[in-house]
Amino acid sequence: MSDRTQPFVSGVGMHPFGRHPDASLKDLARVAIVGALGDAGIGVKDVDAVYSANAMAGILQGQEQIRGQSVLRDVGIDRVPVVNVENACAGGSTALREATLAVRAGAAETVLVCGFEKMFVGDRDLTLSALESAADIEIVGGLGLQFTAIYAMRLRKQLDQGLLELDDLIEVTVKSHRNASLNPYAQFRKAMSAEEVRDGRPIAEPLTLPMCSSICDGAAAAIVSREPTRTDRPAIRVRAAALASGFARDGDEPSIATACATRAYEEAGVGPADIDVAEVHDAMAPGELLYYEQLGFCEPGGASELLHSGATAIGGRIAVNPSGGLCSRGHATGATGLAQISELTWQLRGEAGERQSGRPRLALAQNSGGWVEGESAACNVIVLEREAAWN
Amino acid sequence: MSDRTQPFVSGVGMHPFGRHPDASLKDLARVAIVGALGDAGIGVKDVDAVYSANAMAGILQGQEQIRGQSVLRDVGIDRVPVVNVENACAGGSTALREATLAVRAGAAETVLVCGFEKMFVGDRDLTLSALESAADIEIVGGLGLQFTAIYAMRLRKQLDQGLLELDDLIEVTVKSHRNASLNPYAQFRKAMSAEEVRDGRPIAEPLTLPMCSSICDGAAAAIVSREPTRTDRPAIRVRAAALASGFARDGDEPSIATACATRAYEEAGVGPADIDVAEVHDAMAPGELLYYEQLGFCEPGGASELLHSGATAIGGRIAVNPSGGLCSRGHATGATGLAQISELTWQLRGEAGERQSGRPRLALAQNSGGWVEGESAACNVIVLEREAAWN
Repeated sequence: MSDRTQPFVSGVGMHPFGRHPDASLKDLARVAIVGALGDAGIGVKDVDAVYSANAMAGILQGQEQIRGQSVLRDVGIDRVPVVNVENACAGGSTALREATLAVRAGAAETVLVCGFEKMFVGDRDLTLSALESAADIEIVGGLGLQFTAIYAMRLRKQLDQGLLELDDLIEVTVKSHRNASLNPYAQFRKAMSAEEVRDGRPIAEPLTLPMCSSICDGAAAAIVSREPTRTDRPAIRVRAAALASGFARDGDEPSIATACATRAYEEAGVGPADIDVAEVHDAMAPGELLYYEQLGFCEPGGASELLHSGATAIGGRIAVNPSGGLCSRGHATGATGLAQISELTWQLRGEAGERQSGRPRLALAQNSGGWVEGESAACNVIVLEREAAWN
Repeated sequence: MSDRTQPFVSGVGMHPFGRHPDASLKDLARVAIVGALGDAGIGVKDVDAVYSANAMAGILQGQEQIRGQSVLRDVGIDRVPVVNVENACAGGSTALREATLAVRAGAAETVLVCGFEKMFVGDRDLTLSALESAADIEIVGGLGLQFTAIYAMRLRKQLDQGLLELDDLIEVTVKSHRNASLNPYAQFRKAMSAEEVRDGRPIAEPLTLPMCSSICDGAAAAIVSREPTRTDRPAIRVRAAALASGFARDGDEPSIATACATRAYEEAGVGPADIDVAEVHDAMAPGELLYYEQLGFCEPGGASELLHSGATAIGGRIAVNPSGGLCSRGHATGATGLAQISELTWQLRGEAGERQSGRPRLALAQNSGGWVEGESAACNVIVLEREAAWN
């Protein structure tokens, strides 16, 4: 289909990611939503549909079923279609995709998309148990097989095969923390040296604490609209929003991230070499390096070289995770996909402050979630374009 | 928009509603999904997107985040977009609406929609606590203010004002149980006399047990496709799928059900007098009478007369809840909206057996969910049409 049917991201907003004991789930969401409305220059009465994402409030807050509505009541948005979406850590980007479909189907003009998560609930065991529900609990329940352990087992194999070096993990972690140190919305705002990363608390060998995303509170929101809501700044268009789910059964099949990116590139009519800035799903530091390859930013086996060339640093040919990514900006599960969209929107507008990476035209967000039989249960790849030329 | 852009319901399937201690949540879902695929005459490889609904598995089974994926793995559907949708008791119909939007947006051709719920978990307090999460738990949490109590309070007022009589409640309950007695998918398959309904166990005065939907296990599924998948029987088109959410703050505003039905009638280009058969959300018996008025099947104040005229019985001018409705067919929350769609599809095809109500052309499903500030948190009104003439 022609991308001219695709809507715009007309506003974004975030509640800073981190530990916020005094903010309720609703407080987090409200700040992000009000921020996105203000950024779009619209009011609550302009919103004609809402897509809401959250991953764990059923278990963590006892609130299922109407999570979006319970948040919207405080904001003052009512009597419009509200759809509550869930897709583990990819819920935020899934909600954004559904919003684009609603606009393209003619069912809405101006859609609020929000994602929110409060994982610090004063009971770490409960939070870890909720995290387990991103996989099939009939399989993993009670095993203690957290994502850190799954990543570590896979990583061990790559290290043993010489595909990655420990230094690569350290370097990419130093990069993400450096970027996050420039991000007022980030959970971890302190740059770290290679020594500090290497000597961090071991989590699941060879992963140390700074290499892992952490428990996190936060929220993010976006306004998706048929036409830009403001004319005084560059319009940002959604060029593609692809979603794939599933479990690779056949070793020859591409990874879900690759399959999903292929669809997104096709939908956008671009290739990986056209992307100027990207936010990828580094729930653990090796994830960023893995996705360099799976998204086509480099050839298979080329991740280490791409990293060390500096191309993925802020200002490089393709800046990756200028926000700090999941490891450092933080990973408030249901909100993460929309935090990626917020960062990329700011980058494309030239509003990312100290984190601004050149003058980007095309941006890519990759957000994965859950785990079924060794593959992501969901993966979204979204491509955004700045329509106006840089002057 | 022209309804020619609307997709078809090309297959439906259900797992019988009721108490199924030997069936897991996945077992329930699998039966409904396999049934819908078989009814549509397609295989798992024909499905290019999935929308999945469930209301309470986070609390009841500890499975959040990837509920659809965890079910689909068993069925053998993978590597397609899967979106997990939640909207309390209206989740099933919300999933159906999102499927129609995906087809209309050009993002899918053949979509599986499924809803499943397992509420019998051997711990009634846990189930009641999960049910509370259909309202804002910051407001109702721990109050024990179950939906039965809310209904009863509202009903008391209507009885005191002379708008309804106890006999109306008894009559509509007798009707729903009679209909369910003809439905092999129903939870309560025994016809009841007026005396049995009146003398039933008191739940929340004046509601007796037969007037209330109960805890229930069940699943339902539908195939939504751009073109009919079979040519050997009448095609059933979605003429409208409207969703509204919200909380009436202004006494002059119409109810959410009325607002939603108004949109649906407009989208379908029909009026309430055109509807031949309907499934409405009688979580408690008075709900059916309330919705006669709110959906425009009669004038305000005319529900009792409409009921007693026999017009809403099977074979009447507008048969309502031929399946038995939520009270008698059963209310497996996340599945209910799709159980309505299944029943209406069978009715429109002339496949409802002993429950068949004449030769209907237009059917309406109304499915509400949740509770915020005295209004439904979500309401879907879906209009289906049989395209072929009856011969």
